Amino acid sequence: KEVPAKSATKSANDPYKDEPIRSPLLIPSSEKPFNAEPPVQMLAEKFLTPNDLFYVRNHLPVPCVCIEDFTLDLALSTGKPSLTFKELTQKFPKRSVTAAIQCAGNRRSEMVKVKPVKGLNWGSAAISNAKFSGVSLNELLKHYNVDIDTVRAKYIVFEGLDTQPDGSPYGASIPLELARMLKDEIIIAYEMNGEPLPRDHGYPLRIIIPGVVGARQVKWLKKIYFSPEESTSHWQRRDYKGFNSSTDWHNVDFDKSVSISQLPVISAICDPVDGQELEEGAEEVTLKGYAWSGGGRGIIRVDVSADGGETWHEATLKPNGQTPYHSYAWTLWEADIPLPEGATQTQLVVKAVDVSYNVQPDSVAGIWNLRGCLSNAWHRVNVTVPPARV
Amino acid sequence: KEVPAKSATKSANDPYKDEPIRSPLLIPSSEKPFNAEPPVQMLAEKFLTPNDLFYVRNHLPVPCVCIEDFTLDLALSTGKPSLTFKELTQKFPKRSVTAAIQCAGNRRSEMVKVKPVKGLNWGSAAISNAKFSGVSLNELLKHYNVDIDTVRAKYIVFEGLDTQPDGSPYGASIPLELARMLKDEIIIAYEMNGEPLPRDHGYPLRIIIPGVVGARQVKWLKKIYFSPEESTSHWQRRDYKGFNSSTDWHNVDFDKSVSISQLPVISAICDPVDGQELEEGAEEVTLKGYAWSGGGRGIIRVDVSADGGETWHEATLKPNGQTPYHSYAWTLWEADIPLPEGATQTQLVVKAVDVSYNVQPDSVAGIWNLRGCLSNAWHRVNVTVPPARV
Ligand SMILES: [Mo]
Ligand SMILES: [Mo]
Repeated sequence: KEVPAKSATKSANDPYKDEPIRSPLLIPSSEKPFNAEPPVQMLAEKFLTPNDLFYVRNHLPVPCVCIEDFTLDLALSTGKPSLTFKELTQKFPKRSVTAAIQCAGNRRSEMVKVKPVKGLNWGSAAISNAKFSGVSLNELLKHYNVDIDTVRAKYIVFEGLDTQPDGSPYGASIPLELARMLKDEIIIAYEMNGEPLPRDHGYPLRIIIPGVVGARQVKWLKKIYFSPEESTSHWQRRDYKGFNSSTDWHNVDFDKSVSISQLPVISAICDPVDGQELEEGAEEVTLKGYAWSGGGRGIIRVDVSADGGETWHEATLKPNGQTPYHSYAWTLWEADIPLPEGATQTQLVVKAVDVSYNVQPDSVAGIWNLRGCLSNAWHRVNVTVPPARV
Repeated sequence: KEVPAKSATKSANDPYKDEPIRSPLLIPSSEKPFNAEPPVQMLAEKFLTPNDLFYVRNHLPVPCVCIEDFTLDLALSTGKPSLTFKELTQKFPKRSVTAAIQCAGNRRSEMVKVKPVKGLNWGSAAISNAKFSGVSLNELLKHYNVDIDTVRAKYIVFEGLDTQPDGSPYGASIPLELARMLKDEIIIAYEMNGEPLPRDHGYPLRIIIPGVVGARQVKWLKKIYFSPEESTSHWQRRDYKGFNSSTDWHNVDFDKSVSISQLPVISAICDPVDGQELEEGAEEVTLKGYAWSGGGRGIIRVDVSADGGETWHEATLKPNGQTPYHSYAWTLWEADIPLPEGATQTQLVVKAVDVSYNVQPDSVAGIWNLRGCLSNAWHRVNVTVPPARV
């Protein structure tokens, strides 16, 4: 009631004054922009991550969209149609894809332990899995007589309604070659797990490019166009690229590195968590977690160890219902394995294999990079086992 | 002139009596069946491996084919056409694909050092790269009114003319889902680098499925059919599968593992070779080698180290002329890097990254498996540097 005038003024100028209400369960890695991951134990409980627990990766303030005024703008060789939300949802059939979306920085906190990096200090839960529904990008383009197989361009560019202080929007692109391979699988989503897309996840529209890094899944999608070059945005040109561990901020050349699109194979133990105390005198442990690979490559094996990687057991995979080469959803897994006899502390490890027999690298050090992206080494969780009471 | 009768009889009964003449440069890992790799230094010299140096992986005796009598037999829902070599080469347009073919056991000798495995003791040269030309499988099927996108089956099976003592042929299959993705890129090859397919490489026909393990590139191709199940051959069902390092011959269950099709990212240093003595007082070293990934994933970065993996340099990639997601040829690379000051011995290391940002695992131990397949850890070569003479 008696809010000080100064604070009210400050608040009115705050570009973050219109942020959505969020679940108190989310663990923020930054407040403005808002970035947060769910408690990792909860991740492995459900194949479809509930919308309010889906990790949030915002680069800028969340736009406030008036749905009546909103249009999606296409810049095509055949014209520049602007579609209202109503047109999009009513004129085109609803298509769905169940896909995991992962931040390039997922599991970055493990890299930080090797050497400092620039980036949000994500744990293992900057990944989530949902059923996205909306309009097929390919069907939309066909409607406007654009054939993705013959269009003369090298990239397809997506821009959001989220803008930087200078007014320029968040933007991303993928190679047209990749868009052609995915074709009917790229969705302009207006629904997430059967509900309207939440504001934090792009309301009213988000492009969903399955198998590809989160940074290209442009939220608050406003504009789509073809281009001879990549999106000129900071996030396409000066971020979200990989480097070797000898590259530092003095010698890095972003122009020489390929933008991250498809992601490599990854897995994590979600339960138990690092530092957890198991039951007194426990002789075995139940591990739960996720495994996923980019490019639609399904997970064919998950190996778990209760002795730091000396001996391995195969986890039981929960089939994700997709086919081996068009597997965009994650694979949850579970394993009951024996603990080393008499040990009071031990390290649990997981590593996954995808259908192309890609494996995860052994060590974080070997893949360390200055931005802390692509942190997909074997995932290790240290636990203690109190001795059984006599 | 005076060959002993006994020996002559033995020779006449020898199923290997009709083997082709081979280059004396090839280094055999077994004589009967013949398996051999070229000297590894020669591999990195040419983008297209000369036919007589292309690694040879035979599972059985090399068939002797009379080209006039030969037919390729298709068992289709629309009929069972048998095509003569002349029909194949004259009725259909010649299509080409440049692809690296790699044995699942390439670099197995490194696994043997960790723990014994069953398999031929391949070095780093059980991989080669060639331009294959022939008939597009898809165009051939279309000619017989078979649409690979709608055919009701789960696998496409290939059988060779090479046969076991019981008369059953070498056979392999790939999932139809994979064949659909590759579509026009699968070639029934009758030429290799512009010459008729050599006998060791499948004369007169070999199926070329780019991005996929050598074992499925059936040579002396005789028969193609669709099936609800995988090829029942030993090599499809009881070989060429991956396992974790705790799986041994007592607990292995081949039925539970997925057959190897697409291969993971790999690289190797071809020059210098392990144990090589560099120039006296050398301050830098020139490394040459190959990098490749399965599934058409192009190589985007090759990191080399002259200090056992402590510091890394980017190698210069020689573009293979293919696109990032349809990159079936290998990528040769080269790097001049400084040697550690004053060191008289050091370890050179290479690791590659593919367009999906898949990386090679750090250690051989982490991927060890009882068959010694998929040996794609960082490649390490030890060299000595004699001190400069004063
Ligand atoms: Mo991200
Ligand atoms: Mo092989």
